[in-house]
Amino acid sequence: MSERLQAQHLETVRALLSSGQLTRLSAYLAQLHPADVAEILTEVDSFRQRLALLRLLPDEVAGEVLSELEPDVAQPLMAHMSPERVADILEEIATDDAAEILEDLPNVVREELITLMEPEEAAEVRELLAYPEESAGRIMTQDVVRLRRRWTVEETLDYLRHLDKTAETIYYLYVVDDEDHLVGVVPLRALVTAPPEATIGQIMTPNVISVRVDDDQEDVAELVAKYNFLAVPVVDRDGRLVGIVTVDDVVDVLEEEATEDIQRLGGSEPLDMPYFATPAWAIVRKRIGWLLLLFVGGTLTGSVLRHFAYVSERFSALNVFVPLLIGTGGNAGSQTVATIIRALALGEVRPREAFRVMSREAITGLTIGVVLGTIAFGRAMLWQTGVAVALVVALSVPFITLWASLIGALIPLLAEYLGVDPAVISGPLIATLVDATGLAIYFGMASVMLL
Amino acid sequence: MSERLQAQHLETVRALLSSGQLTRLSAYLAQLHPADVAEILTEVDSFRQRLALLRLLPDEVAGEVLSELEPDVAQPLMAHMSPERVADILEEIATDDAAEILEDLPNVVREELITLMEPEEAAEVRELLAYPEESAGRIMTQDVVRLRRRWTVEETLDYLRHLDKTAETIYYLYVVDDEDHLVGVVPLRALVTAPPEATIGQIMTPNVISVRVDDDQEDVAELVAKYNFLAVPVVDRDGRLVGIVTVDDVVDVLEEEATEDIQRLGGSEPLDMPYFATPAWAIVRKRIGWLLLLFVGGTLTGSVLRHFAYVSERFSALNVFVPLLIGTGGNAGSQTVATIIRALALGEVRPREAFRVMSREAITGLTIGVVLGTIAFGRAMLWQTGVAVALVVALSVPFITLWASLIGALIPLLAEYLGVDPAVISGPLIATLVDATGLAIYFGMASVMLL
Repeated sequence: MSERLQAQHLETVRALLSSGQLTRLSAYLAQLHPADVAEILTEVDSFRQRLALLRLLPDEVAGEVLSELEPDVAQPLMAHMSPERVADILEEIATDDAAEILEDLPNVVREELITLMEPEEAAEVRELLAYPEESAGRIMTQDVVRLRRRWTVEETLDYLRHLDKTAETIYYLYVVDDEDHLVGVVPLRALVTAPPEATIGQIMTPNVISVRVDDDQEDVAELVAKYNFLAVPVVDRDGRLVGIVTVDDVVDVLEEEATEDIQRLGGSEPLDMPYFATPAWAIVRKRIGWLLLLFVGGTLTGSVLRHFAYVSERFSALNVFVPLLIGTGGNAGSQTVATIIRALALGEVRPREAFRVMSREAITGLTIGVVLGTIAFGRAMLWQTGVAVALVVALSVPFITLWASLIGALIPLLAEYLGVDPAVISGPLIATLVDATGLAIYFGMASVMLL
Repeated sequence: MSERLQAQHLETVRALLSSGQLTRLSAYLAQLHPADVAEILTEVDSFRQRLALLRLLPDEVAGEVLSELEPDVAQPLMAHMSPERVADILEEIATDDAAEILEDLPNVVREELITLMEPEEAAEVRELLAYPEESAGRIMTQDVVRLRRRWTVEETLDYLRHLDKTAETIYYLYVVDDEDHLVGVVPLRALVTAPPEATIGQIMTPNVISVRVDDDQEDVAELVAKYNFLAVPVVDRDGRLVGIVTVDDVVDVLEEEATEDIQRLGGSEPLDMPYFATPAWAIVRKRIGWLLLLFVGGTLTGSVLRHFAYVSERFSALNVFVPLLIGTGGNAGSQTVATIIRALALGEVRPREAFRVMSREAITGLTIGVVLGTIAFGRAMLWQTGVAVALVVALSVPFITLWASLIGALIPLLAEYLGVDPAVISGPLIATLVDATGLAIYFGMASVMLL
């Protein structure tokens, strides 16, 4: 929905709220998509208005709205409703969405709510919450339609007509044997276009691609993306169908993983929560670990400078270029690491192609260094450092950018080879690694050329 | 598919290829998913083998394989097949996939291929290629099922049974009037579960959420992600249905946009192509622009150092901490900018919340600075710089991290406010902006405290 339209909805809701026309408001909200209602709820002026809106919604819509809201908006609202109402609401939505809302709540509250839910729903939610975080089991829903091979197309269509509405998707229908083992799949479109008297066994596709309940959610997302699936079935250790992961959950996972990679690339631990929902002390905690490590690593630059004091004291003009040179090394390394990390994440580059990657980065780093070195020479001459110092600066730049590009490519490749997520390698880490060595290159060259 | 299984397939294909058992090979490939065949094709040892495999595939499968391949793998293969065969293959796949393959080809080749295609398909592909890059029109397919209000459910099911197979998705069926204006939508699941004698007009949902053909693909992706859609209809200026964007294309767009943001955050222009498909000179070109700008900006640090030469010459111990301090400023700024850029991209933060963001970043930057400053004091004392210099270093750190965090938050917020994509703001840019000012803080404090 366009922002303009969204603003109009917000205005109308505000007007109806302040004039107390709750029946009209209720009818107005009913024609909106739950995702839009969630946006309006987040934007109204007071917590009291937000709560009033939520209370106006039927259970099913309220549940979908709650699952669209950020946890820091949803939690106070739930705390102000009766636990019975919240439990009723949670029963109405898909079990994976209910589990996602519940997992963010304090233990006591979560337990109370689950106990108040219908036993069957409660058991399903408990089952999901028992799987490890970021696993297929955590993002799947158990509401999946199971067909049998002997059913005819006509019987199946009739069965679908009388189905409980909560099945999250019926676009892929899975076929199981008597022990619930996954044996085939029938896309709804195949069912619709098949002759009514054919059996499921005749029209189903055997060899279903499935994921295991303990597979990592990122692998599940990549599989769904690779095969352009709308959903993928989830099986347990024995091949029994336990649930289904739908593409809308995969889209969420891809966004979440990209967020983690971007925050890590900046040199911070992932926040795991929306920005404003993360308390300031938590942001400090996520950032300070790497900063401390890099700070301690950074003191190496001091050691290098102290080691070369005999050069810099005789040629103090050299000091003027220190920040520029290590900045350039850091920038070149940061460019390379971002490119390589993303190429690794997308599978465009593999560790065994390291040699090919390093050769490309060597060429790139050297070419860039020659251009920048030439400019640096000009700048040094303008500062009247003398030709000797200007030459040291100009010749150091290509070596520094070459080195930075190689390190920026090598470290993530090494991480991937060792089975560590290369996304933990950040721009700042590479910059820090390159800082001290860049200085050593610069002053080493100066001591050879000037002394 | 698991990597082990994929490796087994590759082995089998290699064995069948080298023993020349082409009939068995052809049958073997037929049972695999086109995405897996594409992977195998990429991994076989020689171009000749790759071409042999592709030639074995039926047109439809060959088309799907080509659209899964990276352009640098697909293009030489197409160049070695007859244009007639390639045109036949392109006719068999969805028009958006055909357009995507064609858009990467040289103009002459593209024109020849389109001319060889059936007139109807050719016209559709030309229409797609006429839309601007990264627009909804470019990623949509025109193969969409159109229903009329007066049709009954039974008639519609019968119509679907006799449909041409190429309609990319029939999970949402769109309802149009006599001028092709979009007036409603019927999910296939609603059709299947409705009474056979009901009319489409009775069961359809009016008020369809749609996108305009010239909307940006990123906005389309966000809309599909927000509403958990499987597809979204595309309309022209007059509200006429022209196509459909499916969620698998949205997944590709989300990956592409995340790649662009990550590469920009590293300080490079987006590559637009997979890593190895990008020539080395193109990588240099994408990186050198920013590096040049940052290099010129970085020479400011030299000016600051020259300005404060009267301080650093009297207290040469100060020089030892220069790389450490500006490195820390750069790292703190880089962390903040990554967090804020992602929060802006996900809509978690808006420019009008700038004050709230800046206060949080101020607290975070100061807290981190106090911790690091304390450690810096200890390190300086160990290097026997004397208490005065150690105090200058320790007190500078919190100011530098505070300043870096504020700049790292302010610049992307400003970009968003001005309508510039904040993803162009990189870690290196913030680091460079902070370098010179950080030095001014450090030496300014030294001149006040030491002279």
